[in-house]
Amino acid sequence: MAKKTVVVLGVDGYLGWATALHLSQAGHDVVGIDSLVRRRWDRECGTQSLVPIKTMPQRVSLWNRLTGLTIRWRLMDLCDARAVTELVRDVQPDALIHFAEQRSAPFSMIDLEHAALTQINNLVGTLNLLFALRDYAPRAHLIKLGTMGEYGTPNIDIEEGFLTITHNGRQDRLPFPMQPGSFYHLSKLHDSHNIQFACRIWGLRATDLHQGVVYGNHTDEVAMHPGLATRFDYDAIWGTVLNRFCIQGALGLPLTVYGKGGQTRGFLDIRDTVACVRLALEHPAKQGEYRVFNQFTEQFSVKALAEKVRDARAAHGLKTNILHLPNPRVEREEHYYNAKHQKLLDLGLQPHYLGDTLIESVIETVERHASRVDPVELEQPNVDWRRGGTAGWGKPAESKSRAVVLMSPNPKPRRPAAVAPRVAQRR
Amino acid sequence: MAKKTVVVLGVDGYLGWATALHLSQAGHDVVGIDSLVRRRWDRECGTQSLVPIKTMPQRVSLWNRLTGLTIRWRLMDLCDARAVTELVRDVQPDALIHFAEQRSAPFSMIDLEHAALTQINNLVGTLNLLFALRDYAPRAHLIKLGTMGEYGTPNIDIEEGFLTITHNGRQDRLPFPMQPGSFYHLSKLHDSHNIQFACRIWGLRATDLHQGVVYGNHTDEVAMHPGLATRFDYDAIWGTVLNRFCIQGALGLPLTVYGKGGQTRGFLDIRDTVACVRLALEHPAKQGEYRVFNQFTEQFSVKALAEKVRDARAAHGLKTNILHLPNPRVEREEHYYNAKHQKLLDLGLQPHYLGDTLIESVIETVERHASRVDPVELEQPNVDWRRGGTAGWGKPAESKSRAVVLMSPNPKPRRPAAVAPRVAQRR
Repeated sequence: MAKKTVVVLGVDGYLGWATALHLSQAGHDVVGIDSLVRRRWDRECGTQSLVPIKTMPQRVSLWNRLTGLTIRWRLMDLCDARAVTELVRDVQPDALIHFAEQRSAPFSMIDLEHAALTQINNLVGTLNLLFALRDYAPRAHLIKLGTMGEYGTPNIDIEEGFLTITHNGRQDRLPFPMQPGSFYHLSKLHDSHNIQFACRIWGLRATDLHQGVVYGNHTDEVAMHPGLATRFDYDAIWGTVLNRFCIQGALGLPLTVYGKGGQTRGFLDIRDTVACVRLALEHPAKQGEYRVFNQFTEQFSVKALAEKVRDARAAHGLKTNILHLPNPRVEREEHYYNAKHQKLLDLGLQPHYLGDTLIESVIETVERHASRVDPVELEQPNVDWRRGGTAGWGKPAESKSRAVVLMSPNPKPRRPAAVAPRVAQRR
Repeated sequence: MAKKTVVVLGVDGYLGWATALHLSQAGHDVVGIDSLVRRRWDRECGTQSLVPIKTMPQRVSLWNRLTGLTIRWRLMDLCDARAVTELVRDVQPDALIHFAEQRSAPFSMIDLEHAALTQINNLVGTLNLLFALRDYAPRAHLIKLGTMGEYGTPNIDIEEGFLTITHNGRQDRLPFPMQPGSFYHLSKLHDSHNIQFACRIWGLRATDLHQGVVYGNHTDEVAMHPGLATRFDYDAIWGTVLNRFCIQGALGLPLTVYGKGGQTRGFLDIRDTVACVRLALEHPAKQGEYRVFNQFTEQFSVKALAEKVRDARAAHGLKTNILHLPNPRVEREEHYYNAKHQKLLDLGLQPHYLGDTLIESVIETVERHASRVDPVELEQPNVDWRRGGTAGWGKPAESKSRAVVLMSPNPKPRRPAAVAPRVAQRR
């Protein structure tokens, strides 16, 4: 496989960092850029990664010491059009992996300011890229992180981006009808339409990875050294559901399911995320082509996920309660869901399916960092789709500093699971 | 019909002004707001309305003198969230008619700056409105001007917003798949998705008027007095195609068709625009409903429109040439097109179909204001979909000040058609 020059946009994030390492290890020349805004949003929201993460210079330099490989790190905001243009013109990348967006649905639903910020930030960053590609690197392959959430939950099978529709005796292959469920998911859909248009009129080429919900925190590269850790979010704003369940489980807290829990989504292991991105990179879209891959490996209902975590713990004799909370989101809680995800398999993806091993490894990670858990983040969700951010979404409320209550005795603790109130860098 | 309190957003525009007068005349209490940015964009682009238009205070005061009716005029930018909130809270409107967006496809294609401006301006204005409605007027009916251009030109019949799709033995009614053709059209699609989402999660109600290309410059109210004139654009950035053809015809210039001219679109008379908006207003969407009306009355190919103008002039013994220019847009020039437009007819719309009378009345308007025509605006289009704004889109180039060349003798001039070089308020 020929070595490619690849820009990873959003390299400081959960997936951006793991992807940069994976592509670097695979022999590609990686340029990593990030504005570090996610660390600022953490301070705003009073959240933090469960696993401590080093600064970008520290991580890049450690990677170099351990492997002899270089990731070219550049601090840059994708919303700075001039900087984006210079980046594309100077680097002349073969491909760009675009993770650099505000990626939390609850964050986008806090209030008008956060909704508008999400849509402007995401759209403008992507527009900046598209124009820079048109003018300075029209043959570069844009690999964009979209989301399965663009589709919503239609009552028909979900195809990969396009659908052949027969209507009144005529037929066309058209974009799949989309029904996103938050201002964040909408921003991804807006991006998808803008990118598709740019491919059509300017002959650019792009792969839109409609990704499912990612879980796990280890890839082969991240696992090489604790200093290479990627962030791991579990709170109600940035965390994803399985990660939250594992943390709740590790702490003996009840697993909190929103509503009935029949909400079904596509999921994948972070090891498959980095593998999928590499497959897309090494099998690029054709010039002028806009293609969509549905990037997930299995679909589960939220309730089924909670039961998996409960069962994994039960195998060790640990009892876990499942608690249904009023759903802060507006979504169908029981619905048909059958989403295709064949294209990445056809390119050679070897999925890591969700099993007890994964759940146990995440639980082990949690126990190692239990002192960093803010238990309040594991209780009620703090952003409501109808009313926006509720009390305490971003403030160091008094109530947040009380200690976690262990809900079930833990007869076989692997490590001391002492959970101290966190004194974090809140506003 | 009960009197409604209606906010017309974008009241200084081509359709906003005509609509405000029509609703005021129909007995509704009209609040008109505008940032006047369109007049600023005219100065930036070196364009101007063919028909001179008065200032907002002058127009509103003249309307009051002529009819005794009051339009409450308020200078305001929809991108100012605080102002929007105060407006909605203070006025407590029954409905809002939202014309207040950047509405030119070529303007959005000039360069990155104009693409981003168009999308940010349009999305943020609409988001501001949606949140203000959620918080202060959740029962108000939002009537939003969308565009038929959101659909693009699929190879199947175009329905009104939604399509029942059968796929692999299952069925759902889903948003019609969209393929917009410019960053402007994309901004309208993004709005449509945001509005649909707000109706779903907050129970707001909205009518999205997917409007065709509007022609004509007279409504009953506008025609009452020259001081009530609404703007009339004919240039390559703001003008619509039939208006441009009428002007070219009136001046004896060739009618310039982009490409083959098989591009087919929906069209309507400005008198039908104001009637449609009134029908939507007086038959509101249900609470929580997002509905789409396709707002046009006839579909024509661009070439057929040119032939209509040519034939109307031929009836007076005037010869008109039709000139095919290289298409500055990226679009199909021959395609299937069959768009439904039944819902407004079902509500009682009485269409004004395009006929010689309309063409002649527009030509007459042109002849009356011939001295204001900038002939350069009628030649080559100055924004290209592939390369952006070409020489002179916004600059007072030397070449722009030469006089128009009359391409065909005009044996029966109704009025002197002398066309002087314009000394306009260019930058």
